[in-house]
Amino acid sequence: MNQVRAYIDENQERFLEDLKHFLSMPSVSADSAHTDAVNACAQQLAAHMNEIGISAEVLPTNGHPVVYGEWLQAAGRPTLLVYGHYDVQPPDPLELWQSPPFEPAVRNGSLYARGATDDKGQLLCHIKAAEAHFKVHGRLPINVKYLIEGEEEIGSPSLAQFIEQHTERLRADVIVISDSSQFGPDTPAITYGLRGLVYMEVVLEGPAQDLHSGMFGGTIANPAGVLAALLAQLVTADGRVAVPGFYDDVVDLADWEREAFAALPFDEAMYLKATGAPAACGEAGYTTLERQWVRPALDVNGLYGGYGGEGSKTIIPARAGAKVSMRLVPNQDPDKIADAFEAYAKKLAPDTVRCKIIRHAAAPSFLAPVESPPMAAARRAVKAGFGVEPVMIRGGGTIPVLSDFKRLLGLDALLLGFGQPDDGPHSPNERFRLVDFHHGCLSAAHLLDELA
Amino acid sequence: MNQVRAYIDENQERFLEDLKHFLSMPSVSADSAHTDAVNACAQQLAAHMNEIGISAEVLPTNGHPVVYGEWLQAAGRPTLLVYGHYDVQPPDPLELWQSPPFEPAVRNGSLYARGATDDKGQLLCHIKAAEAHFKVHGRLPINVKYLIEGEEEIGSPSLAQFIEQHTERLRADVIVISDSSQFGPDTPAITYGLRGLVYMEVVLEGPAQDLHSGMFGGTIANPAGVLAALLAQLVTADGRVAVPGFYDDVVDLADWEREAFAALPFDEAMYLKATGAPAACGEAGYTTLERQWVRPALDVNGLYGGYGGEGSKTIIPARAGAKVSMRLVPNQDPDKIADAFEAYAKKLAPDTVRCKIIRHAAAPSFLAPVESPPMAAARRAVKAGFGVEPVMIRGGGTIPVLSDFKRLLGLDALLLGFGQPDDGPHSPNERFRLVDFHHGCLSAAHLLDELA
Repeated sequence: MNQVRAYIDENQERFLEDLKHFLSMPSVSADSAHTDAVNACAQQLAAHMNEIGISAEVLPTNGHPVVYGEWLQAAGRPTLLVYGHYDVQPPDPLELWQSPPFEPAVRNGSLYARGATDDKGQLLCHIKAAEAHFKVHGRLPINVKYLIEGEEEIGSPSLAQFIEQHTERLRADVIVISDSSQFGPDTPAITYGLRGLVYMEVVLEGPAQDLHSGMFGGTIANPAGVLAALLAQLVTADGRVAVPGFYDDVVDLADWEREAFAALPFDEAMYLKATGAPAACGEAGYTTLERQWVRPALDVNGLYGGYGGEGSKTIIPARAGAKVSMRLVPNQDPDKIADAFEAYAKKLAPDTVRCKIIRHAAAPSFLAPVESPPMAAARRAVKAGFGVEPVMIRGGGTIPVLSDFKRLLGLDALLLGFGQPDDGPHSPNERFRLVDFHHGCLSAAHLLDELA
Repeated sequence: MNQVRAYIDENQERFLEDLKHFLSMPSVSADSAHTDAVNACAQQLAAHMNEIGISAEVLPTNGHPVVYGEWLQAAGRPTLLVYGHYDVQPPDPLELWQSPPFEPAVRNGSLYARGATDDKGQLLCHIKAAEAHFKVHGRLPINVKYLIEGEEEIGSPSLAQFIEQHTERLRADVIVISDSSQFGPDTPAITYGLRGLVYMEVVLEGPAQDLHSGMFGGTIANPAGVLAALLAQLVTADGRVAVPGFYDDVVDLADWEREAFAALPFDEAMYLKATGAPAACGEAGYTTLERQWVRPALDVNGLYGGYGGEGSKTIIPARAGAKVSMRLVPNQDPDKIADAFEAYAKKLAPDTVRCKIIRHAAAPSFLAPVESPPMAAARRAVKAGFGVEPVMIRGGGTIPVLSDFKRLLGLDALLLGFGQPDDGPHSPNERFRLVDFHHGCLSAAHLLDELA
């Protein structure tokens, strides 16, 4: 491993150039205007993997293609499946970027570009780790497969079917994903739990078209006002989700977890400063970290209806709507929660409006055993890469594909986050610290060794 | 008057062509791209008035110009001031128009165009009435002044100052405005009361930028969710405005009004069908007409914040806002109500968000005496024009200039509505029934006679 580490150290500059090239391709999966860029990015990634020595190809799906690569010449050794995604979030709002989102730029020890941390930078660590082993030893210590999709940022609509169609080809002993983050600078982390997601939309319809609020105000229901009243009843005053039955299956955090989280170097003032929010708040009886990781939550992700431009327009809007998402924890069932939400929202809506509910997404939470041979190998690899023992954490976000892996391949994934919580995925000025990129490459190289 | 009536009857076709020409000019005051069209419309209107025999000119304001006209050769007779506006609402959404908004088209006995009823068609009745008198008698029975502005649809920002600057020139004995509507077909009406308006905007700011709802959901306040909770507390379950002190100065309707409104041929089923709303609702203890005309109301005119497009985006929005308007009745003070709203909204907003309040508009309600010599003359004129005794009604909308007339000229206006409640002002397929245009011209001609 010393030679492998030396190779990674000596090639930092070139690895950075390769990452810049990867990031310069605007592979925005949500925007059909970028379809060519998405395809070009997949082709470029496959070509790069083939150059390194991984046998890679671009495989079609019902949507954007998958880049699949493998090296399977370590007979008798375990097989690692690396999952990642080459697509990125839309870069809007463009005016808030200090440098253009697809012209990667280094400032203050970080590389700034859309996709820098989510997920091109973190993904490339696992490819560069293989390159180092190939260059130094001519081979890898274990068998490796790469499943790199192009639709993660739009909810992976084609991935489950792809996995079903290629179950045997994807069969592995361990799955690793680097699409999360460390706990903070110099505090690498392995994430063993994530929240699930149910994403709904409530649409209330009243008059057939926008009406003059002077001529009709006070005589018929205003969909925007009714919507506000409905949304206000989704959360209680003490920060709990008011949907009946919502907490029925919730597994509360264990005592050891509560203690472990309390021992983490969490700085709530810094956390708030980073968000820009005036104050922390949430469910009574839990700390901020507990609220983020192990307690469910409901958020209004968007509101629309009527006039939202400058100045004033005196109308009763014909319709109003809200995007509402709920983060789920073990053992909440997404479909059961979606059903309960729909029934509750329809009950709350008075008969003075028509209520429509749209279901956008449903994914269960994730919880891996903290004690297992692969987890132990991962801990050793991260410690070797970062020089610090990783902390074991949970996360508030959702990786829907984890449940597909469990269901179709029978595996819990190892979530090794190389980025920082404030790297700004999905935000302007997304970044990846150069030191994290380097330590990530080292950790990924050690993981291949530790799993052998 | 028989000869004047005959002239109006015989010239219906030409009057219609003149109205079509007036309507073909896209004098959209809200859109700076239409500034040339607004000016051209003012010039054309002044030219048309001069042709008829009214001495008209286009006078500058701080915004769009005023068309002022006068004929003052009836020495010893009273002076009538006709107020109207030549500007129109934006035509959007264009795709819902059956014929283009600025290509006036007759269908089923109505003329369809933006501005047909609001206010070009109704205004032209008062100009064509003068034409008929001039053509038949070579003079008018009374002195007449015309104040026709180009900013009514954007809240008349320059009009009060214009009136102040021209108070002596505008001095009159009676003011007439035709910018409202009849009670229904074959039920002409005189509107003696209107509601006022206070238009506010509530803006709640939370995080510095949109945040990932997985990574932060449940730990900081969501401005969109807080906004919903705030808005829900603006109206009580029984349909009353919850702003403290809101009803302190409200003058309830008189017994004779309640009886008079109940006697009107109001068809609630037809009313609902016209709006497309599933059910009527509002303040407990009042009928739909009472809610519309004499009771105050609060409406959410627009909601914004976060993601409102197709599909889903998992964010906590950085900010969310709502346009909120209140319709006021006698004797509510708009400034006092705006103060009370602002104080209440700020009190409702928790310290987990920053709350900003914007004031967009404030105008008092209007209530004219139902018994007065000018009102009696107006009743006789409408009866002569429509062949039916007009009903005395109030209205739910707001004409802010009425309070300026009262304050600066000391006059309550006569509101003679020639259009129909379902003519669709501010909506696609705005129309003016040809029969109403004709009866409006006749009524306006009789008004000149009755006031003499």
